[in-house]
Amino acid sequence: MSARYTIGLDYGTNSVRALIVNVANGAEIAAAVWGYEHGTAGVILGRDPNLARQHPADYLKGAAITIRQALALAKQSVKGFEAGQVIGIGVDTTGSTPLPVDANGQPLVFQKKFAGNPAAMAWLWKDHTGIAEAAEITALAGKMRPPYLAKCGGTYSSEWFFSKILKCLRTAPAVFQAAHSWIELSDFVPAALTGTLHPDKFIAGICAAGHKAMYSATWGGYPDKAFLSKLDPKLGALRDRLPTRVLAVDSAVGALTADWAKQTGLPAGIPVTVGAFDAHTGAIGAGVKPGTLVKIIGTSTCDISVRVNTAKLADIPGVCGIVNGSVVPGYFGIEAGQSAVGDIFNWWVDYIQPGGKMALSHRQLDEAALKLQPGESGLLALDWNNGNRTILVDQQLTGLLLGQTLYTTPVEVYRALVEATAFGALTIINRYEEYGVKISEVVNCGGIADKSALVMQTYADITGRPMKISRSAQTCALGSAIAAAVVAGAHKDFAAAQKKMTGLKPKVYKPNPKAHAVYKELYALYKQLHDAFGTIQWNGNLHGVMKKLIEIRSRVRK
Amino acid sequence: MSARYTIGLDYGTNSVRALIVNVANGAEIAAAVWGYEHGTAGVILGRDPNLARQHPADYLKGAAITIRQALALAKQSVKGFEAGQVIGIGVDTTGSTPLPVDANGQPLVFQKKFAGNPAAMAWLWKDHTGIAEAAEITALAGKMRPPYLAKCGGTYSSEWFFSKILKCLRTAPAVFQAAHSWIELSDFVPAALTGTLHPDKFIAGICAAGHKAMYSATWGGYPDKAFLSKLDPKLGALRDRLPTRVLAVDSAVGALTADWAKQTGLPAGIPVTVGAFDAHTGAIGAGVKPGTLVKIIGTSTCDISVRVNTAKLADIPGVCGIVNGSVVPGYFGIEAGQSAVGDIFNWWVDYIQPGGKMALSHRQLDEAALKLQPGESGLLALDWNNGNRTILVDQQLTGLLLGQTLYTTPVEVYRALVEATAFGALTIINRYEEYGVKISEVVNCGGIADKSALVMQTYADITGRPMKISRSAQTCALGSAIAAAVVAGAHKDFAAAQKKMTGLKPKVYKPNPKAHAVYKELYALYKQLHDAFGTIQWNGNLHGVMKKLIEIRSRVRK
Repeated sequence: MSARYTIGLDYGTNSVRALIVNVANGAEIAAAVWGYEHGTAGVILGRDPNLARQHPADYLKGAAITIRQALALAKQSVKGFEAGQVIGIGVDTTGSTPLPVDANGQPLVFQKKFAGNPAAMAWLWKDHTGIAEAAEITALAGKMRPPYLAKCGGTYSSEWFFSKILKCLRTAPAVFQAAHSWIELSDFVPAALTGTLHPDKFIAGICAAGHKAMYSATWGGYPDKAFLSKLDPKLGALRDRLPTRVLAVDSAVGALTADWAKQTGLPAGIPVTVGAFDAHTGAIGAGVKPGTLVKIIGTSTCDISVRVNTAKLADIPGVCGIVNGSVVPGYFGIEAGQSAVGDIFNWWVDYIQPGGKMALSHRQLDEAALKLQPGESGLLALDWNNGNRTILVDQQLTGLLLGQTLYTTPVEVYRALVEATAFGALTIINRYEEYGVKISEVVNCGGIADKSALVMQTYADITGRPMKISRSAQTCALGSAIAAAVVAGAHKDFAAAQKKMTGLKPKVYKPNPKAHAVYKELYALYKQLHDAFGTIQWNGNLHGVMKKLIEIRSRVRK
Repeated sequence: MSARYTIGLDYGTNSVRALIVNVANGAEIAAAVWGYEHGTAGVILGRDPNLARQHPADYLKGAAITIRQALALAKQSVKGFEAGQVIGIGVDTTGSTPLPVDANGQPLVFQKKFAGNPAAMAWLWKDHTGIAEAAEITALAGKMRPPYLAKCGGTYSSEWFFSKILKCLRTAPAVFQAAHSWIELSDFVPAALTGTLHPDKFIAGICAAGHKAMYSATWGGYPDKAFLSKLDPKLGALRDRLPTRVLAVDSAVGALTADWAKQTGLPAGIPVTVGAFDAHTGAIGAGVKPGTLVKIIGTSTCDISVRVNTAKLADIPGVCGIVNGSVVPGYFGIEAGQSAVGDIFNWWVDYIQPGGKMALSHRQLDEAALKLQPGESGLLALDWNNGNRTILVDQQLTGLLLGQTLYTTPVEVYRALVEATAFGALTIINRYEEYGVKISEVVNCGGIADKSALVMQTYADITGRPMKISRSAQTCALGSAIAAAVVAGAHKDFAAAQKKMTGLKPKVYKPNPKAHAVYKELYALYKQLHDAFGTIQWNGNLHGVMKKLIEIRSRVRK
């Protein structure tokens, strides 16, 4: 039998990637990337710094271009490769990235009337225009439907589905009125590829619905009509037009259409899986299983783990989502994360640009910082330059650096920032374990995990746990390809597929006991600052300092 | 009558300056500067970063060179100028900078046996080797002699006279044993110039004795023998050999010797005033009078004011010294200060070096930061990179920066650091006024006051007070020249001399009411952080965070 392959189609913030994987061994034989055409690096921005949108045309064009190109590359790299050997497609995307669609399931922005209207485009995950709406949803759910909140960590975010729709309803009523429904990007692409982009046929993924739209079988799907109507009767009415079939990534949404077969060069009729978020398929690609925490470290970090599906799993305060089947079917998927990790290092390197004419690079700072001893600089930082996603669930927080003298160097600050993100990571692990989710293994993926010995060694030393690295450099796309392999019948289940198709790098960063001992002391100090500035329980006054500064800033900038 | 002149001889950390001033109008007709020869930029350093010493030979050589050179320059700048028109010399120096002397009053390090021995040199003001001894003195005084502490703000500093002597006693006993006595640099120079450098003839200045050696007429001079003996019997024995005559700057210590007349080209017999610290004569040169706060802004800042000499002046907690006659005779001299001001800006520019290949200069940062609005950056900093001299009197504190996002710029941080020093300045003014010392005018001197519109405007906006600038760029030396003019009889008193010899620049920085309103809000937040991290009353835990980081740092660096 000739080799069989699946394609992982991975939609990031700035570009889309197609990865062709051998289902027998996970070999990644070809990959192609295409940067979105619209906006700035694929993101449409506005005068409001919170606004971030995307044009859905980029999603469709990107699929055709990258698949065609990846197939061409595969022919070069594997002798005798034929597109006919591809047996399925899996899809993962950013999220929550919802877009309004018309009664035919087509993006509203495709209509002449709404062309170029940002409200009719896809509302990218990092669009924060709905801050007030998120607070309103959180407050109402806390009063009216506490269980809705409990499963998403106690706070409904401005990044999520209903915050964005409610914001549109209030600020772009014509768009809201014209929209038949709203769908997630992770559902849009599979539906488009399979011709199911129609209200009657549409299937949503449990990953997006469960983590971002408060969907749960426990309470009969999406939030109930009374609740949504209380926010706005029109939002209540929309509920009837939301997708009714919500499935996990072990299902196909349909088969590749003849038209898309022609556009891509793939055989028509191959299955396209239910879509999911990139971090979730990334966890699959990194070999997630109960006890494993997968850290997808990039500009921000997503922490994904799974737990055997029992009714007993407690809610975990501050952990943004626990959803049945959102990662691997049959398990609870648990999602946490840090709002900025690589972005904090980038801030220091790209915005502050320390080191004068030397213009220190990440690599130079990494190498120099690795030579310092824990505690040597006397510095301590909080990793909140972009707020705190877990466990405080508060975007209205900011960075803090403490301990600087007249001789503090750029390298010392850089190391303190790396340490801060590691302390943040440890805080998440501790929270998991406090609530009964035991973490026995940490697998890291993403470019930083791959390239920065400083980051990985610091994470090992601070958490006191070995840091393993995923073998694949494209775990998200690989995870989608694995889902496609399961759906296409190449493996009996995800565990079997992961066993064959995933792996770890030989290098494991082991904690240094001496460093860990110092970091234990430093972590106690980090936790004091964390609690003092991050919570009102501990001390209302200092918590208020960061809040008040943001309030003054907003007022002055107006 | 031909014009008369006096010389101000001003000993800084790295160099000495001689300034020739016309007593009739304060015209500065010539100045010469000479950098000390020994050590690194005049400072002898050691493996211990707290060690900072100077070689007394530099003080003597510097007097001869700079006076000769200034006289030569005066001949060029004023037609017909003759050295015989110089009628007196005033001296100011850094301090507390004590040095051990032998039974003939000669510096111990001049003896072959002690040549090159740092313990036998002058212990420069910024030598912090006596941290433990300072704590011990503070603790004992608190228990045994509370009034000693009350007049120096509640804490005896490691920078001061007895901390250094006790440190020498313990770590360099041979030097201590060989020392007949210890004298301040501000007393050493006048004594050397007048041939009174002998235990029988020696006169000390009240400025150094009162501010740094707990000298007060109230309790009969220096701390009593029982107290010093409790620290160490040998220190108690030393008390009998400390100077017995302690005077203010309106007295002469003697007349210039024939030898020094020859070395300098000045007429023999002219009076040399009692010496004082540079900041104190700087206040004279800036026109200090009751109600005026003189800020000498440099790498650190000294705040000097005077108040009518009544027995009623309350002690001011956290203000490092209130001494009768220490600035202007007949008034209480009040000294406060900030441990780092220019040094914090230098840290950002010289150590962090932000802005990459542009290598942003102070000037570029100043100009750009001046365009920002108060509160716009969302940043808030504490000005403690070198500890806090007033009002916390705690060198074991460190810097803090709060509010940074992913987009915070080097200019925003720079402005936040400038604002932090202004908030620190306001905290000192507020403390003065809380204890009945009304400040009706602020006069600034030093290079930063002269050059930085950003700093001066920010100080005006934050304190809500106009910022005036001293006319002279050499206020310390000018103040010494004024003292010499009074001592030589050219003016009947300091008020009369100041009226003729000092002045302000026409430019006054006036507070912008809109900016001041925003800064009022920001100052409340600064004060919260100040109290939370700076005091144990408010919250022991956070105060402990900075302390613990320093403890860990010291341990790790060992």
